[in-house]
Amino acid sequence: MNKVVASIITIGDELLIGQVIDTNSAWMAQELNKQGIWVARRVAVGDVWDDIWQALDEESRRSSIILITGGLGPTADDITKSLLLKYFGGSMVVDEKALANVKWIFERMLKRPVIERNLQQAEVPDSCTVIQNRRGTAPGMWFEKDGRIFMSMPGVPHEMKGMMTDDVLPALRQRFQLPFIAHRTLLTAGIGESFLAEHIKTFEEALPASIKLAYLPNYGMVRLRLTIRGEDAPALESLLQQQFDTLRGLVAEWMVTDEDISIQEALGRVLKAGGYTLATAESCTGGYIAHLITSIPGSSHYFKGSVVSYDNEVKTNTLAVSPDTLAANGAVSEATVREMVRGALQQLNTDFAIATSGIMGPDGGTPEKPVGTVWIAVGNRQNILAQKFSFRFDRLRNIELTATNALNLLRKFIHSPTS
Amino acid sequence: MNKVVASIITIGDELLIGQVIDTNSAWMAQELNKQGIWVARRVAVGDVWDDIWQALDEESRRSSIILITGGLGPTADDITKSLLLKYFGGSMVVDEKALANVKWIFERMLKRPVIERNLQQAEVPDSCTVIQNRRGTAPGMWFEKDGRIFMSMPGVPHEMKGMMTDDVLPALRQRFQLPFIAHRTLLTAGIGESFLAEHIKTFEEALPASIKLAYLPNYGMVRLRLTIRGEDAPALESLLQQQFDTLRGLVAEWMVTDEDISIQEALGRVLKAGGYTLATAESCTGGYIAHLITSIPGSSHYFKGSVVSYDNEVKTNTLAVSPDTLAANGAVSEATVREMVRGALQQLNTDFAIATSGIMGPDGGTPEKPVGTVWIAVGNRQNILAQKFSFRFDRLRNIELTATNALNLLRKFIHSPTS
Repeated sequence: MNKVVASIITIGDELLIGQVIDTNSAWMAQELNKQGIWVARRVAVGDVWDDIWQALDEESRRSSIILITGGLGPTADDITKSLLLKYFGGSMVVDEKALANVKWIFERMLKRPVIERNLQQAEVPDSCTVIQNRRGTAPGMWFEKDGRIFMSMPGVPHEMKGMMTDDVLPALRQRFQLPFIAHRTLLTAGIGESFLAEHIKTFEEALPASIKLAYLPNYGMVRLRLTIRGEDAPALESLLQQQFDTLRGLVAEWMVTDEDISIQEALGRVLKAGGYTLATAESCTGGYIAHLITSIPGSSHYFKGSVVSYDNEVKTNTLAVSPDTLAANGAVSEATVREMVRGALQQLNTDFAIATSGIMGPDGGTPEKPVGTVWIAVGNRQNILAQKFSFRFDRLRNIELTATNALNLLRKFIHSPTS
Repeated sequence: MNKVVASIITIGDELLIGQVIDTNSAWMAQELNKQGIWVARRVAVGDVWDDIWQALDEESRRSSIILITGGLGPTADDITKSLLLKYFGGSMVVDEKALANVKWIFERMLKRPVIERNLQQAEVPDSCTVIQNRRGTAPGMWFEKDGRIFMSMPGVPHEMKGMMTDDVLPALRQRFQLPFIAHRTLLTAGIGESFLAEHIKTFEEALPASIKLAYLPNYGMVRLRLTIRGEDAPALESLLQQQFDTLRGLVAEWMVTDEDISIQEALGRVLKAGGYTLATAESCTGGYIAHLITSIPGSSHYFKGSVVSYDNEVKTNTLAVSPDTLAANGAVSEATVREMVRGALQQLNTDFAIATSGIMGPDGGTPEKPVGTVWIAVGNRQNILAQKFSFRFDRLRNIELTATNALNLLRKFIHSPTS
């Protein structure tokens, strides 16, 4: 069975001047990968005729599937559709279903009059098969040429995702005989990438050729991923599981979860399983921990809320931190975060609480407490654990590192509350 | 003056299986653009020898500057350095400064013993000029070949950014005669992309050839960007300003800010200028609004904190929402968000407050209040404004849309509190 290879082309000047971060490609790559389609390249080009044309030429030389997003908007800077007409031939026609969809979206959903510019979005080259867009006005276009499949989709993430899930992925599955591909992922915290690599060196060197190991460091944690690819699914599945079990044993000490989920999701499962409730008292993280937790569907089962006490007055009035504690130790101190945990447990009436206080930068540092100094406390009514961290990054990264360390500290505390 | 063209190559399997979102390229493109260097392509390839080699060949055919990130880690899946040695020739040598840096980072910063695997990071091909990494262990490598510049940097964002800012950008400025390039950006809310395009059609068609207009829709808002490029800086600057003033007048009704900043930054400036304080009372946004606000350095000047009242008990206990109001109207109601604003103003003692309550999905919808139903209220002690929204996206997008709409509602309210 041949390896089915895909390329992703994203179109738009906004990608090349950096005004927009490309999240589409990552999602598409993930979904293609799950189907056993290997993404060999991702290319971003501007709204420039020759560059788009050349990218289509180049990628079709190496891949059988070329997925294209962007450049389909109703405004003058979007040239992709006229280029596709020229590239694949044919003439521009109105697609009646797409036209009905444009009208429906404007008249029923947006409750705005539909204008000529929007109606033009229903025009497509007659050389393509139209993939309807149920979430927006620009239809998708499926072309075939010299045995290659080209699929053009809008760049709006939820429109592209809907089209991929409903139509494109099922059509690709039907068209190609796809190889078996499987991943197993685990997340570690508290050990650096190179120490981890040293620790599992023998394991890595003895891995069978069909399995690949990848290190994915992020926010002070390292994700390890085993990937297997081939044809005999049951045999590969069992070989992968066996190797993954060995790996799991080797890194047990640092393992946060053996699933491909985030630390907030892993913690959420622990809380839900125990029937526990959680509150956060956030100073320096400014609500980011609460946001991470509430990004997970169903988090209302265990998360009751947060007091973001950015100002010291909120610490004293709402979290009952003693003004004397603040005066004697400062807001960034062990004593303060301990009282914040107590205050959150009391005020929000939960089983567990997390508290953070630190200096995120770029300003606010002092010689005794430089930027990056953070105190985190986690606890329940019996016991509180506090730990000091020193980060040395920019504001956003310091916030992210504080949040993930706080979530991991609580996860460990629930596991072993007195250690 | 010739247009100086750059390509960005990002290396790593994690980019092609979608496990990591590439934020580096956007940042690099932004910084290069500011210098007048045009990024023509961004290419992502896996940790695959032939693919990296081919990307270097292809991009050096079209660009004079090739910036490469990733694949320099201490683990076995990282092959970029050996490939660069082969590609540019020479032999591997230990760079003494890089070695001292690796030792310093481990012994002083991380307080862990340095191991062989880490020491190897100080090895570089002697065909390159080493760019020291002050934030991590992998040094940068600057190669030149056939008049092209190739710069290899680590994929860790803050390491790459530091290297670019401290060394790479200054060196490129010295090397090339760069054209003048300038952007002016404004942000609109409350009008769709196609209506905006229709509204400024005459303006757009009359734009001089040196100026390009781009539409950048995001989170229900549309950013408009004018870009000018050429040689005579003062003349271009004044032409751009003149066109931007016209555009600003045309879209005044929907304009959030005429700077290239986020809505939270725009609101922060309004609050700071007026000496006002703000609190949020967040149910469905779960702390995300507080996070957006506190992502901005200096936000402690106007933001006092938030009560994330995910559970109704927190709404009644901490925000003093009446249990009768909740029983009669439900948590997702005008009456509830109005009481949440009052509660936040009172409990957190601020001039203004924002409150949100809604159903973010995927579960929790009812026929009367389907997923995406959101109530937002903003106000001060004199007046409260509440508005209902119906979003129809996934959980994260609903949270983001609620947050940006809430921030914009408050911005408008401060501007005109009784309308």
